Amino acid sequence: MKILFLNGPNLNLLGQREPEIYGSLTLAQIEAKVRKHAAKLGAEVDFRQSNSEGELVSWIQQARGSFDLIVLNAAAYTHTSIALRDAISAVGIPTIEIHLSNVYRREEFRHRSMIAPVCKGVISGFGANSYLLALEAAVNDTRK
Amino acid sequence: MKILFLNGPNLNLLGQREPEIYGSLTLAQIEAKVRKHAAKLGAEVDFRQSNSEGELVSWIQQARGSFDLIVLNAAAYTHTSIALRDAISAVGIPTIEIHLSNVYRREEFRHRSMIAPVCKGVISGFGANSYLLALEAAVNDTRK
Amino acid sequence: MKILFLNGPNLNLLGQREPEIYGSLTLAQIEAKVRKHAAKLGAEVDFRQSNSEGELVSWIQQARGSFDLIVLNAAAYTHTSIALRDAISAVGIPTIEIHLSNVYRREEFRHRSMIAPVCKGVISGFGANSYLLALEAAVNDTRK
Amino acid sequence: MKILFLNGPNLNLLGQREPEIYGSLTLAQIEAKVRKHAAKLGAEVDFRQSNSEGELVSWIQQARGSFDLIVLNAAAYTHTSIALRDAISAVGIPTIEIHLSNVYRREEFRHRSMIAPVCKGVISGFGANSYLLALEAAVNDTRK
Amino acid sequence: MKILFLNGPNLNLLGQREPEIYGSLTLAQIEAKVRKHAAKLGAEVDFRQSNSEGELVSWIQQARGSFDLIVLNAAAYTHTSIALRDAISAVGIPTIEIHLSNVYRREEFRHRSMIAPVCKGVISGFGANSYLLALEAAVNDTRK
Amino acid sequence: MKILFLNGPNLNLLGQREPEIYGSLTLAQIEAKVRKHAAKLGAEVDFRQSNSEGELVSWIQQARGSFDLIVLNAAAYTHTSIALRDAISAVGIPTIEIHLSNVYRREEFRHRSMIAPVCKGVISGFGANSYLLALEAAVNDTRK
Amino acid sequence: MKILFLNGPNLNLLGQREPEIYGSLTLAQIEAKVRKHAAKLGAEVDFRQSNSEGELVSWIQQARGSFDLIVLNAAAYTHTSIALRDAISAVGIPTIEIHLSNVYRREEFRHRSMIAPVCKGVISGFGANSYLLALEAAVNDTRK
Amino acid sequence: MKILFLNGPNLNLLGQREPEIYGSLTLAQIEAKVRKHAAKLGAEVDFRQSNSEGELVSWIQQARGSFDLIVLNAAAYTHTSIALRDAISAVGIPTIEIHLSNVYRREEFRHRSMIAPVCKGVISGFGANSYLLALEAAVNDTRK
Amino acid sequence: MKILFLNGPNLNLLGQREPEIYGSLTLAQIEAKVRKHAAKLGAEVDFRQSNSEGELVSWIQQARGSFDLIVLNAAAYTHTSIALRDAISAVGIPTIEIHLSNVYRREEFRHRSMIAPVCKGVISGFGANSYLLALEAAVNDTRK
Amino acid sequence: MKILFLNGPNLNLLGQREPEIYGSLTLAQIEAKVRKHAAKLGAEVDFRQSNSEGELVSWIQQARGSFDLIVLNAAAYTHTSIALRDAISAVGIPTIEIHLSNVYRREEFRHRSMIAPVCKGVISGFGANSYLLALEAAVNDTRK
Amino acid sequence: MKILFLNGPNLNLLGQREPEIYGSLTLAQIEAKVRKHAAKLGAEVDFRQSNSEGELVSWIQQARGSFDLIVLNAAAYTHTSIALRDAISAVGIPTIEIHLSNVYRREEFRHRSMIAPVCKGVISGFGANSYLLALEAAVNDTRK
Amino acid sequence: MKILFLNGPNLNLLGQREPEIYGSLTLAQIEAKVRKHAAKLGAEVDFRQSNSEGELVSWIQQARGSFDLIVLNAAAYTHTSIALRDAISAVGIPTIEIHLSNVYRREEFRHRSMIAPVCKGVISGFGANSYLLALEAAVNDTRK
Repeated sequence: MKILFLNGPNLNLLGQREPEIYGSLTLAQIEAKVRKHAAKLGAEVDFRQSNSEGELVSWIQQARGSFDLIVLNAAAYTHTSIALRDAISAVGIPTIEIHLSNVYRREEFRHRSMIAPVCKGVISGFGANSYLLALEAAVNDTRK
Repeated sequence: MKILFLNGPNLNLLGQREPEIYGSLTLAQIEAKVRKHAAKLGAEVDFRQSNSEGELVSWIQQARGSFDLIVLNAAAYTHTSIALRDAISAVGIPTIEIHLSNVYRREEFRHRSMIAPVCKGVISGFGANSYLLALEAAVNDTRK
Repeated sequence: MKILFLNGPNLNLLGQREPEIYGSLTLAQIEAKVRKHAAKLGAEVDFRQSNSEGELVSWIQQARGSFDLIVLNAAAYTHTSIALRDAISAVGIPTIEIHLSNVYRREEFRHRSMIAPVCKGVISGFGANSYLLALEAAVNDTRK
Repeated sequence: MKILFLNGPNLNLLGQREPEIYGSLTLAQIEAKVRKHAAKLGAEVDFRQSNSEGELVSWIQQARGSFDLIVLNAAAYTHTSIALRDAISAVGIPTIEIHLSNVYRREEFRHRSMIAPVCKGVISGFGANSYLLALEAAVNDTRK
Repeated sequence: MKILFLNGPNLNLLGQREPEIYGSLTLAQIEAKVRKHAAKLGAEVDFRQSNSEGELVSWIQQARGSFDLIVLNAAAYTHTSIALRDAISAVGIPTIEIHLSNVYRREEFRHRSMIAPVCKGVISGFGANSYLLALEAAVNDTRK
Repeated sequence: MKILFLNGPNLNLLGQREPEIYGSLTLAQIEAKVRKHAAKLGAEVDFRQSNSEGELVSWIQQARGSFDLIVLNAAAYTHTSIALRDAISAVGIPTIEIHLSNVYRREEFRHRSMIAPVCKGVISGFGANSYLLALEAAVNDTRK
Repeated sequence: MKILFLNGPNLNLLGQREPEIYGSLTLAQIEAKVRKHAAKLGAEVDFRQSNSEGELVSWIQQARGSFDLIVLNAAAYTHTSIALRDAISAVGIPTIEIHLSNVYRREEFRHRSMIAPVCKGVISGFGANSYLLALEAAVNDTRK
Repeated sequence: MKILFLNGPNLNLLGQREPEIYGSLTLAQIEAKVRKHAAKLGAEVDFRQSNSEGELVSWIQQARGSFDLIVLNAAAYTHTSIALRDAISAVGIPTIEIHLSNVYRREEFRHRSMIAPVCKGVISGFGANSYLLALEAAVNDTRK
Repeated sequence: MKILFLNGPNLNLLGQREPEIYGSLTLAQIEAKVRKHAAKLGAEVDFRQSNSEGELVSWIQQARGSFDLIVLNAAAYTHTSIALRDAISAVGIPTIEIHLSNVYRREEFRHRSMIAPVCKGVISGFGANSYLLALEAAVNDTRK
Repeated sequence: MKILFLNGPNLNLLGQREPEIYGSLTLAQIEAKVRKHAAKLGAEVDFRQSNSEGELVSWIQQARGSFDLIVLNAAAYTHTSIALRDAISAVGIPTIEIHLSNVYRREEFRHRSMIAPVCKGVISGFGANSYLLALEAAVNDTRK
Repeated sequence: MKILFLNGPNLNLLGQREPEIYGSLTLAQIEAKVRKHAAKLGAEVDFRQSNSEGELVSWIQQARGSFDLIVLNAAAYTHTSIALRDAISAVGIPTIEIHLSNVYRREEFRHRSMIAPVCKGVISGFGANSYLLALEAAVNDTRK
Repeated sequence: MKILFLNGPNLNLLGQREPEIYGSLTLAQIEAKVRKHAAKLGAEVDFRQSNSEGELVSWIQQARGSFDLIVLNAAAYTHTSIALRDAISAVGIPTIEIHLSNVYRREEFRHRSMIAPVCKGVISGFGANSYLLALEAAVNDTRK
């Protein structure tokens, strides 16, 4: 199983940026955790970050044929990007929307997701653990 | 670790009710999965269902001192119940909101949660697996 | 044919409560009319009232296998109860929403029904006769 | 007792038009059913259809002195016509609003009725039977 | 003079629950204060709490003939319960809406009261003293 | 204890103006009641009325250092005056918002208060008694 | 000077229809008053009524070249008709919008005029006198 | 007959201020026209202007017993002043709302009047002639 | 191929009416262009205009069996007519919505189309050329 | 005549992506059709696609001096991009907005165009033919 | 160059009032800074404060002929005063809106300015420096 | 002191683009003015423009450690970009939002800023001078 982890704008600042909201791990540390846990689960992962909406769209498009599932932390673009939504619909790869913080505790404009209605599910608020839970959800749907 | 799983109105009909939305497992089958996985993780669980908003409120209240975490599938009450929200705030036990279906794919009135802003996080759309992911999230926050 | 008549909060006060809005018959008198007319039409009826949203939900759930149709005067819960809506969807029994008063003549918040979109039809404004019309609608769909 | 049945725009296409929404009876067949049932109940009926809002307004006006009750399926004009509302208020003849389909199951703009607040009651969703139920409601208010 | 004090969901947690919002007195301590002050004023009081909307509705209904006035702290149900509103209208007993906290300082959804439009008046923000002020308002309307 | 009672626009017409809404006492009669009751409670009161928003703002400003509490019936300005709100925040004197009528029974624009979120509490709907209850609330917070 | 008075739906019922709102004069009596006063002012008038939006549109179109001014009581169509608005814009004849009743005292949907933004002015609330005031406004702009 | 003409903020600048909207007459010239025409009609007029909402409120209050009718061009305060609305309701003197410009041709916030619902009628858009038409409406209601 | 061109209210004034918005061609001149171009494309056209919503509805109804496609410039009725929408749905003939002006450059109320959701497509803003483009779209779908 | 065809995000997936909405032609096939038809009409075309809002903005900017007209299928950016709108306004090149699907048949957020108000016109819903119709509209404005 | 600095309600409390929002300088200290800097720039300034909307309106009116520019910190009136807006439009003196605090960081009702659309520009959030920046903007438009 | 000036989409067209809104200076000319004035004030500046939201985000991120302050004219992205907002919050460098035009005089969608709530202040409407005022605000906070 191959899983593509995509990270949206400003997530490259993790660890330095508002740790009371986003936690103190860097994105590289989260990636390491993901890779380690994926190895344990027998999954292959790719892990990328971009500040550009267009680049994220292109990455989703290119995932066709290469990945079985996308885990998408679209960050700020979650709330406004119809282009990401259309890309997910277009490629038809199951996608899980995740967030580090619980977006429903924050400003009202973060409560709306343009992406959730075309995703399989949403995991929000568990810090770096949101990534691992998505991995579990992806790999292990039929477990237990 | 002791975890209280609370299930709101109509979840007692699971398996029979609109399986294309909610899946084909009964609530008892989900409970069994949860118990089995909890045992593996060394957690103790209680698992209840009620159609009554007031009873759910009371169960949350009584959890104080007995449980370390609540996993709450409030179903229909998710979208309107200020009483559940107040109960969660009042007892101060970390609570995870879960849903079987991806509520963001459904009617607009299911997109608003009165409860999410006082919860630790939200897991939505993974069918019975939402319960297990919440269990993982609860038990295993520091794993890996 | 077996029909379940369910009455929501405050309908037990009929006859005493604001007769200029709800008429002067008591709920017992309406029940008597319903039973008499049902007998004439060869239908069997059960007739209940509750002030509790949860109990109404449970009664709808229990109707599965026992009743062919539900006539539901959900009163105040009509306008806010997603739980009742989900119960109706879940059991899949044809349901008719009724009201004594014409709700569209009253406060704006009574114009919205959470239940109507999952019901077969709506009858509103004919006083106790709304019950009898629903009975006709239920029994006699193919009449004449 | 004399009852005027008025039918709004596009109802002349019944039977041919979207039968999954409106049923397979033509308006003439519905009229026949109404006349037959009215005869049984000892009521006299007139039955008309128009695509013109102005003509419907005029027919309501002319009903004064000639009819005891109006049964109005205003179709599309239900949701926007203040002129029909004013006509009903002006003539002071009790009016019953009816619909073949359950308008609350359909597009949001069909949930608002400009007419219901000046009508005696509303019957919606019973197909051709909505006409017969209105007839019952009109003739038989004191029955049983 | 007989006065019924009704307390809505989560008020049984008073004293333990978010004291910076609700104060540090328990509901029992508030009841004691109310009883003591009522005795001084020559009023008889009953004092109850429920987490169930339906039970609160039933208590209001049963107050007819037994109580001269209701003091209602409906807590979370204040903002959504049409059933409580209808019960108050139905029994016709003067009712005073009270709150411990100043609801207008809190989340926007707490600013709307479904109940206030059918109450005599509203007292909000004085902690346990809101109960005593309501008692004064009830007993002593013509004082001084 | 020194308390400043401020009365907003049109309250000088009390007694003559729409007595079915505001009661039949004049503002002078209310002042007399307040003074008498204050004397009993050992409080000193000042009592003023103005039709000018600016003058009310200035009076609040001047209260600093002279008064321990403000009782404010801002009447029409309640619903629109940010200047009054800012004045209350600026001077930091505890302020109680009062109304003669139950504003929640009246036009929708009277349901919003610009002032309540910076006040200690709100008392609404008890006629002249609203003034006396505010006096009690002010003086006697720790009573009983 | 030639003035066209146009009357919209249901105004043919004046005198009979809700006299507490619209006054007790018939449209013919109003026309007589208008004609008499116009004669005094040296103006020629035409005076028509229609229940049909399309016919009113056509009359406005035909006024070009024949009339110097239109006085339009569009009644119910005032609030919804873009077609009337476009007709007024198209013919470029100064138009005065009038109403018998004060529309701002009535239902909210009567507060919006689709026509007023393309009219010279609005006169509302003076009963039959609204017609005469419009006549004055039309004829006598430069008087005194 | 005694009529009070009240003019709100910035009307003292008439003639100089945006003549394409408000015309080129000064307020003094309008007053002269009003006085001349009133004399002809046998009416007595008082004519005042203020930039202060509070002063306008006070003038309306003082009109009781001295004037039979108020003509009110409240200018900017038309759209926001609940205090003026309350003053008109309180004194019970018939009031006519007027505007020089057609407010419905201008910014959306000028389309709402807080005052119109308590006025006898509204005249808007006829420049200085709006004053004379209001005078006619006041004096001559029963003319012709 | 037979195509029905339907023109709504005020389009009979084209050429004379606001040419800066609608162009300087009359409707007859547009019809001539359409007929000439249709002949070239081997299509047969009918071309009609009405100010009456009801007549337009009837023409759409009558098109069944006679026309392969409707080109509809519903003008003002575009934005409000549910009756036209229902007629298009009912007859099931592919319909193209057109406009002379670019409606999105104009008043907000012209941005909403009640008809577009049941049409094949929309062409807006090309003046008389909108008609010819619709003709091309109709006839030539498979061209090139 | 030189025409720039710009295609927004995800249009590079055409043919593969949701063919029931967007048709089965690839973007290259559409380009070929456009080039062929343009050759016939004597027009020169450039044809580009980008997933990046910024790149689309830059291409519009660079069109100044090189192209006579832009045909813009902005896809997802249609509904949110003020930057594209500003670019079109800034370069002053006539622009035609096109869509493959009829956007008015789809989600509500696709009904609003940020771009249409600065475009010459809109063509929506004709599949690949929308491109050819825009070409016709561009080249052939004065034809026939 | 002569510049009028106008300060709205509660600004006379600066320094004492919520220094974390408004800074610790008094209005007199700000005035001194403004005068000193104006002298350096060769500008003459007048500096006033009022709690009265009407007085601020009058001061703006009187500025005509005496001042070249107005710097207006309308404080609370910024968000609601149409009268101030009309005064600025009427006198035609360039006006700069300023705020001490960044109003966009505060309550939603402070985000709307009724005045900004008729001002030259807005400077918000620089504390006392907002006054000096406005002075620079006024005097030195062509500098550097 | 080091200041980063960032310019958003379409600002590279300044001088050519709609000079009546944005002035006639090119961005290079504004940069020259800024550099000259900065030199005078002893500040170092960097000055960049991009049409890409992602690039602007990245530049803000990279400013950490290199710049003391950011002056941001985000142009079109001001009104929609949560990514820019998050970047500003994340890097924690004081940021001043500027605009050439007074955005409050323009379309409603330009009145909302997603960025202002995380900025130090806003300067809008002074043309190229807005840049110099921001420079002053940055450098000279404690001046005079």
